[in-house]
Amino acid sequence: MKIALDAMGGDFAPREIVLGAVAACRELNADVILVGDETAVKKELNGIATSGLKLEVYHASEVIAMDDHPANAVRRKKDSSLVVANRLVKEGTAAGVISAGNTGAAMAASLFGLGRIAAVERPAIAVPMPTEKGVSVVLDAGANADCEPENLVQFALMGAVYAEKVLNLKSPRIGLLSIGEEETKGNRLTLEAHGLLKSSGLNFIGNIEGRDIHRGVCEVIVCDGFVGNIVLKMSEGLASVLFNQIKSAVKGNFITTLGGLLLQNAFKQIKSKFDDTEYGGTPLLGLNGISIIGHGNSNAKAVKNAIRVAMRAAEERVVEKIAVALQPNS
Amino acid sequence: MKIALDAMGGDFAPREIVLGAVAACRELNADVILVGDETAVKKELNGIATSGLKLEVYHASEVIAMDDHPANAVRRKKDSSLVVANRLVKEGTAAGVISAGNTGAAMAASLFGLGRIAAVERPAIAVPMPTEKGVSVVLDAGANADCEPENLVQFALMGAVYAEKVLNLKSPRIGLLSIGEEETKGNRLTLEAHGLLKSSGLNFIGNIEGRDIHRGVCEVIVCDGFVGNIVLKMSEGLASVLFNQIKSAVKGNFITTLGGLLLQNAFKQIKSKFDDTEYGGTPLLGLNGISIIGHGNSNAKAVKNAIRVAMRAAEERVVEKIAVALQPNS
Repeated sequence: MKIALDAMGGDFAPREIVLGAVAACRELNADVILVGDETAVKKELNGIATSGLKLEVYHASEVIAMDDHPANAVRRKKDSSLVVANRLVKEGTAAGVISAGNTGAAMAASLFGLGRIAAVERPAIAVPMPTEKGVSVVLDAGANADCEPENLVQFALMGAVYAEKVLNLKSPRIGLLSIGEEETKGNRLTLEAHGLLKSSGLNFIGNIEGRDIHRGVCEVIVCDGFVGNIVLKMSEGLASVLFNQIKSAVKGNFITTLGGLLLQNAFKQIKSKFDDTEYGGTPLLGLNGISIIGHGNSNAKAVKNAIRVAMRAAEERVVEKIAVALQPNS
Repeated sequence: MKIALDAMGGDFAPREIVLGAVAACRELNADVILVGDETAVKKELNGIATSGLKLEVYHASEVIAMDDHPANAVRRKKDSSLVVANRLVKEGTAAGVISAGNTGAAMAASLFGLGRIAAVERPAIAVPMPTEKGVSVVLDAGANADCEPENLVQFALMGAVYAEKVLNLKSPRIGLLSIGEEETKGNRLTLEAHGLLKSSGLNFIGNIEGRDIHRGVCEVIVCDGFVGNIVLKMSEGLASVLFNQIKSAVKGNFITTLGGLLLQNAFKQIKSKFDDTEYGGTPLLGLNGISIIGHGNSNAKAVKNAIRVAMRAAEERVVEKIAVALQPNS
């Protein structure tokens, strides 16, 4: 089961992407196709012992830049590493594709390149969100700014399959992100979605509120892509602001500096818990193939974890399971 | 300038409310009417030296409970402390009303009791949000789950008056909360609101993203009440989860306990920065009178700060200034 990796996408590409691929081959026995400029990729591989690893390079002559217009770039740059990596999945050569490049382009390339599962109205970005109790999946995190109530039911279903099969969360509970626990609280979208979710047969626990997101009250958190994107970015932003405040406070004087040293490991552990490189990128669910979108600042560890996630999604046949779950009267 | 205070509303009413009123009279030279059950309120005042303070008790025989249905309770309990406190503002006896009780009922009592400023389509809850650089106002934080683009422009205008006059933020910048900085990013609501804000003559800096909320990139953050409520509650929730994680980490062993002791004051300072009792409750903007809604868990300090905010809003004639700013062709 091969994973096609866009070697040219990301703030630290190709270096960190290549190093992540090598680590995945070594540590996870992964089978990776590095897609990108052959010369650039081989230069990074130079001096690294790769014999015995299932690692190949597939040449692609073009690169989609971070500031390229997503849809236009995907349409025009047919031989870009991103488009070619998606084609390898479409053709059946690879089971999944990963890119840490231009997020809009990565989405567009997979939407155009892999296509939707027939019953899926809107594919969704599913983001693993660290919580007090572990991890939950929030979806949609930005693919669909405006949604219909029916879309949210499909998100719930796809998120549940992903949470159970890939994140290993047994019998995942589904919560609808709203502004009050009562089912009469919400906006037009969530009020209607609440009714649909209630009668869906899914493991739906009802509305959850903003304060519940990081408390781990459920494993799947459903919302429209506008709300989900704000939640995701605000979560990163606030955590970073709080850690910065602690950092400055520690630098205050001799006493606080000493306190900071004594708590250094504890801080590291907490930070790593709220560090998205741990969860290996965000899958785009609802497509005819596995597509994982990495953070632009992905380092080798994030890339390795994204490969782990893609491998697991492929092994667990997540695409097929979503298709079956979405069949009418299934 | 009298402030009518609902003495019976809040998790710690009437005790903390009464203590907050006394503190405001002593420290801020406030002029407070404690509205509520005379016996209960006087019992709390027993033993407290109040001579010379501008503090009176106004009897109201009923109480609206935390779990009462907001609109029904306000309609039926005409002699409740909350409804009477609002009536004192309507009649001109008091300049503003404060309640830390049932939030829905507090909103309903002020909407019904004070009425909207003529040009205001939708009153909004304006929440002071701590940032890296100080404080910003987020509105609407929950009064209107579904909004029209025009509502967001009015929120921007009301928020700017409030930020400048009450929070003392000079020439406040206005940001539209969305899912990308480019004006082409957003949902139907924000895409249209962006255009209106751009041509509004307001100090509009464009879209901001979730990660910008706590960075202090602007002083007024505009969004619909669904998004704003999630942002507000998630902010509280995540900060509390992170502080809990630090607390458990500190308890780990002797070394970390010592580190925690050395950083105790620093942690307290950061926590107090992210502590909403500092900002004295959230105003309901757009009404014919000043109405401040306190957190249910308000202690005396939060009540005192809410009185300070109400006094300042009254002194600065925020209601009149919003009315003037909202006049067509103003």
